[in-house]
Amino acid sequence: MGNVFDPNCPSRVVLDRIAAKWTGLIVLALGNETLRFGELRERIGGVAPKVLTQTLRSMEDDGLVTRHVYAEVPPRVEYALTELGRSLDEPLLAIQRWAEQHVSTILANRAAAASA
Amino acid sequence: MGNVFDPNCPSRVVLDRIAAKWTGLIVLALGNETLRFGELRERIGGVAPKVLTQTLRSMEDDGLVTRHVYAEVPPRVEYALTELGRSLDEPLLAIQRWAEQHVSTILANRAAAASA
Repeated sequence: MGNVFDPNCPSRVVLDRIAAKWTGLIVLALGNETLRFGELRERIGGVAPKVLTQTLRSMEDDGLVTRHVYAEVPPRVEYALTELGRSLDEPLLAIQRWAEQHVSTILANRAAAASA
Repeated sequence: MGNVFDPNCPSRVVLDRIAAKWTGLIVLALGNETLRFGELRERIGGVAPKVLTQTLRSMEDDGLVTRHVYAEVPPRVEYALTELGRSLDEPLLAIQRWAEQHVSTILANRAAAASA
């Protein structure tokens, strides 16, 4: 059991990894599905292929994502969440809903602060 | 209502803000309490005062945090979550629990991947 408030606890590193720009969106985009690289990239707007590849590799190392290569021409590569990755999907969904629900309030607050 | 998968939707910016290194930890550290700057800094290990100040200012602009200055010598400055900030505390707690629970599994997965 870790403690995210302890700067020397590796759970802080785990928290940073979850918070990394694309990790959360990848988990949310995969959900219960198996997606090809191109499908995943299309679903997550605005991510550069190189960055998506690197993030997926880190997530594979962490045990959040599985990668299957099918020996076809051209090779088909599919990604899915592991059980561990799926366990992260639910808490992230709550964060997604929060961001989507409160975006207009936050933008209005920011505009008010900028003109104050 | 936003859509975090749309790169042009501001909810993506809101998501990035929540994911910013210290925002989540500040929300979690404040919870239902009112804390002085020094107390907040102590609770969140490893944050530089300048970075904490900047993050708190952004969170104030977003309407997540209130800042009260008491005219004492030296001036006392206290921070607390707004209602909006408190509504973010619960989904973040689920993320915190996930990180703290799964840190050992993730470290083991990474070590295995590094030696593969």
